[in-house]
Amino acid sequence: MKPGLLVVVSGPAGVGKGCIVRKAMETMNCIVLSISATSRPPRPNEIEGVNYFFKTREQFEEMINNNKLIEWVEYCGNYYGTPKDFVLSEIEKGNVVILEIEVEGALNVRKMFPDCVLCFIIPPDFQELENRLRGRATENEEAIQRRLKRAKEEFSLIEKYDYVILNDTLEKAVSRFTSIVEAERMKTRRNNEIIEKFKNI
Amino acid sequence: MKPGLLVVVSGPAGVGKGCIVRKAMETMNCIVLSISATSRPPRPNEIEGVNYFFKTREQFEEMINNNKLIEWVEYCGNYYGTPKDFVLSEIEKGNVVILEIEVEGALNVRKMFPDCVLCFIIPPDFQELENRLRGRATENEEAIQRRLKRAKEEFSLIEKYDYVILNDTLEKAVSRFTSIVEAERMKTRRNNEIIEKFKNI
Repeated sequence: MKPGLLVVVSGPAGVGKGCIVRKAMETMNCIVLSISATSRPPRPNEIEGVNYFFKTREQFEEMINNNKLIEWVEYCGNYYGTPKDFVLSEIEKGNVVILEIEVEGALNVRKMFPDCVLCFIIPPDFQELENRLRGRATENEEAIQRRLKRAKEEFSLIEKYDYVILNDTLEKAVSRFTSIVEAERMKTRRNNEIIEKFKNI
Repeated sequence: MKPGLLVVVSGPAGVGKGCIVRKAMETMNCIVLSISATSRPPRPNEIEGVNYFFKTREQFEEMINNNKLIEWVEYCGNYYGTPKDFVLSEIEKGNVVILEIEVEGALNVRKMFPDCVLCFIIPPDFQELENRLRGRATENEEAIQRRLKRAKEEFSLIEKYDYVILNDTLEKAVSRFTSIVEAERMKTRRNNEIIEKFKNI
């Protein structure tokens, strides 16, 4: 009774997506993180197969043409995308694959995998989000303003998601996220095998 | 972000529905149990408004005619049903109302409240269910056989439910049940208020 699952996690920059997913992985060992492919060159410290699968533009375009990607975008002259084989083989094993991607990508994944689960993480309020972005102190004012504008655009599409997860404290948000994963795995439509067993008693 | 909810819990006799719901009520204080109305006379120790709302046949028929029941059945010459007002007012308060009813009743509730959540509890296997029924030692062989036959009939309708919850250990089953309640409360379609807030930032 442990069906595999594809879970998409979105939310504005600074909302804590990465923290929630990493903590959830510590409590549920069925959770695996999807690794993106990119044509961007590796930065120092970035490791092939851990941070990204690094590809040349030609290799990436071949993946697009051969339908090897669940979704992809071109951003600042580089390709980014989600390799399909990894996701499918992990679902097949009964694992829960997490995709951390932005809203447009999420909606494209839903088209390709109608059975995926879309989660949107929200901050307690907008001011809190701004505080968190400023707290990072890694970006200039212009970049922060750009991210806040982008957050507003993303909020306009929350309704397209299945679940909305409040991140007021990390602990609660992780518990909310794992509850969704647990619940989705108990959906009758994902458990045909066990249902058939009981129907044929 | 705590929307009210109607959750229907079904499953064969002996599967542990009552235990799971009672334990869940201890961990989530938003959970309330719906109290049925019946035209059956009270047994010794049964308390009005705790075990049942006791009604005369005439009073019960008036409730039926005035559309005051979510669902009702006549069984062994007595009426049993779920009063609508209590359920609606608790949902309005943001509480999670649990209905512990059998399969046909559950499917009738779904017709009246399409937004309700249907959970079906299953035992680890059929033998285990039989053991539990015999372990109760409160019923004769004929009654046990009747319950097992009934269980098989109920299993044939599991697919109509949203979730299937395995009761292998009480603790795990309670955690599964509360995960479903938590997850359902995070569904975007139940959180229009907070979504509107973020859309209008």
